[in-house]
Amino acid sequence: MSIITLLTDFGLQDEYVGVVKGVILSINPAATLVDITHGVAAQDVHQAGDILSAAFNYFPKGSIHLIIVDPGVGSGRSIIGLRLNGHLFLAPNNGVLTHILDRYDVEEIVEVSNGQYFLNPVSQTFHGRDIFAPVAAHLCLGVELKAMGPAMPEKKALRLQTERPQIDAEGVLKGKVVGVDRFGNLITNISLNHLEPLSCQKQGRVLTIKAGKTAIQGLAEHYSQVAKGEPLAIMGSRRCLEVVVREGSASQALNLKKGDPVLVYSSAVESPTRNTE
Amino acid sequence: MSIITLLTDFGLQDEYVGVVKGVILSINPAATLVDITHGVAAQDVHQAGDILSAAFNYFPKGSIHLIIVDPGVGSGRSIIGLRLNGHLFLAPNNGVLTHILDRYDVEEIVEVSNGQYFLNPVSQTFHGRDIFAPVAAHLCLGVELKAMGPAMPEKKALRLQTERPQIDAEGVLKGKVVGVDRFGNLITNISLNHLEPLSCQKQGRVLTIKAGKTAIQGLAEHYSQVAKGEPLAIMGSRRCLEVVVREGSASQALNLKKGDPVLVYSSAVESPTRNTE
Amino acid sequence: MSIITLLTDFGLQDEYVGVVKGVILSINPAATLVDITHGVAAQDVHQAGDILSAAFNYFPKGSIHLIIVDPGVGSGRSIIGLRLNGHLFLAPNNGVLTHILDRYDVEEIVEVSNGQYFLNPVSQTFHGRDIFAPVAAHLCLGVELKAMGPAMPEKKALRLQTERPQIDAEGVLKGKVVGVDRFGNLITNISLNHLEPLSCQKQGRVLTIKAGKTAIQGLAEHYSQVAKGEPLAIMGSRRCLEVVVREGSASQALNLKKGDPVLVYSSAVESPTRNTE
Repeated sequence: MSIITLLTDFGLQDEYVGVVKGVILSINPAATLVDITHGVAAQDVHQAGDILSAAFNYFPKGSIHLIIVDPGVGSGRSIIGLRLNGHLFLAPNNGVLTHILDRYDVEEIVEVSNGQYFLNPVSQTFHGRDIFAPVAAHLCLGVELKAMGPAMPEKKALRLQTERPQIDAEGVLKGKVVGVDRFGNLITNISLNHLEPLSCQKQGRVLTIKAGKTAIQGLAEHYSQVAKGEPLAIMGSRRCLEVVVREGSASQALNLKKGDPVLVYSSAVESPTRNTE
Repeated sequence: MSIITLLTDFGLQDEYVGVVKGVILSINPAATLVDITHGVAAQDVHQAGDILSAAFNYFPKGSIHLIIVDPGVGSGRSIIGLRLNGHLFLAPNNGVLTHILDRYDVEEIVEVSNGQYFLNPVSQTFHGRDIFAPVAAHLCLGVELKAMGPAMPEKKALRLQTERPQIDAEGVLKGKVVGVDRFGNLITNISLNHLEPLSCQKQGRVLTIKAGKTAIQGLAEHYSQVAKGEPLAIMGSRRCLEVVVREGSASQALNLKKGDPVLVYSSAVESPTRNTE
Repeated sequence: MSIITLLTDFGLQDEYVGVVKGVILSINPAATLVDITHGVAAQDVHQAGDILSAAFNYFPKGSIHLIIVDPGVGSGRSIIGLRLNGHLFLAPNNGVLTHILDRYDVEEIVEVSNGQYFLNPVSQTFHGRDIFAPVAAHLCLGVELKAMGPAMPEKKALRLQTERPQIDAEGVLKGKVVGVDRFGNLITNISLNHLEPLSCQKQGRVLTIKAGKTAIQGLAEHYSQVAKGEPLAIMGSRRCLEVVVREGSASQALNLKKGDPVLVYSSAVESPTRNTE
């Protein structure tokens, strides 16, 4: 298997992504290169971790995933080589792997440090080109992960603090917007697991989703259940709750952005919407 | 042949395009994936149809074209599998195939419904990942189109109303801007066929193209015929009339956008330009 | 070897890049296509030349590089086929090859004119599709460069005037910003060679980099040497001096853009910064 995926904050206006690919293909011309995205906000390690977690499992086992969102490039931060759920990952040790480390058992983890597989010289500003690309290409050629550096204790892998949705004393689940996609859909950190304790079996009650000043009753099955321009709540492509405006941008219509709270609670059906703020 | 093209409104900031490619490569690692564009305006079925029509024939016969601009995802809308002019197409039945259905004879058309080739489960928000990608990958592996679902009467394929340029009683051809490209070029729906009845054989007369307040006399052969910053009219890359500003943006300079009218008529050479509005 | 790279100002919102790839794959389905970038500013031949020069050497020898930034398309401008440092290049004869012609010995240079390898008909607006793509595909199949047209005297290759950094009578090196990347980093035209005459061996003196109203003392080794939001100067990924704001945009913070001057001079350590303008 010879798939290498790329997940970076490089954008597409410069030569950076092309150069990384050139280095890989110089070492392994048979590698299949796939962009996950290069549109991560500059230095946004949280966003990159969310996207990695949402995407990697759709690639074949044996794929090698490069995650290059690396504000600490050139400093003392180490580079992790990780095997987990049959996939390989190369990433700076800055917390971008938090979600997948939380979710899967580590199969192998090394600190990438064997300069034999790096470009020479190694710059202090572009390890994507000088370290990540050539190491990935060699792994893809069949070099073993352990050749890249010494085993690393798993606890040395940096973890980001991630705020999980919590149910407060009044039974309100407090989550938040973790991403706004191209369509303006508001992606939250609320999964089905978080909603289960709130599930409304009782007659006359329904889940209410409060995003900004808008309250939405019930989860939709598909976008077409409401009129164009109307908001709805739905379990989205990442299997998390999303607040969406049909054929419009929820972010614009509801004036909400990344980091803003989204509340879920059980309420009486057809209660007046809470638009009193 | 193993080329799969992708034409979507997903943009490139999220993981959506990468995930679709991951699913395809998980089923058929040998597929060659080519992006036509992911920059279609959100839910703009007309734009996607124009782009598909302009692009698909430059790919080899046997290519499989995925068109995922799908405002009705998760609703009752069906999915079309189509063979035409030696190419295969997978698209929601929402009119995005109108132009190519108008232009070519259908060789085979099915309603894609055989869940055996879908991911399991199928979400209500991301059929690109759960249906289009795996079906394309299987077609690319050699599974026959008819295995994907029952034959579909061609008339059940939804057609968009497309406004064609018309010549009015005074001999004025009325077309419109159907797209503005990266350069700010104004792409119209006027082809050479539409211009033929106006063709100016008579001495002293010339085709005049009126876009906004600007009147342009004659069709240019290439951009360099006018000075930098000056407007010209030319048969463009899609073999349709374009209004262009040399090394500038016609959209900005002429203050025109998609949907705005463009008129063509025969007039006396060197008549004063009609800038009197 | 079958790598073809693409460097254009087409952007990604239209079908243009996809169409070029379709034409190549129709002729040579085994070609490996890699985007360097399609984000060059419209018609910006200087920027394309800088990017080409920074990127091409990271690809394997034998790669074919298409540079399609072509304001003169359809006019009399010729098309160059060039072999140099083991790489092949196809570009309009508009100066985009200046840097690489300055830096390497020409191995072979032809004027691409053999219509046998072009699409038929050739449009006046899209030679990327009609000439560059099919010629690259045939070269990639093993057709020799000399088959594409007659040998061209090297002096007929158009050169751009490029302003090089100069040291003035007072010992101040005057360079300028030649690019702003996705991160807002200010890329200058100042390389280590230019800095050498200024090198500060004397005790108590240091290189000072002046960008807009900000003076920075000394070259940093990596971004983390300053606090977040602070500026630094560093030899960047292109091996040229860059002015950077850690985890921020230097272009925004310092209010500088392409073309603005950057000065370097030797000064006493810890002199007050020159913010008096």
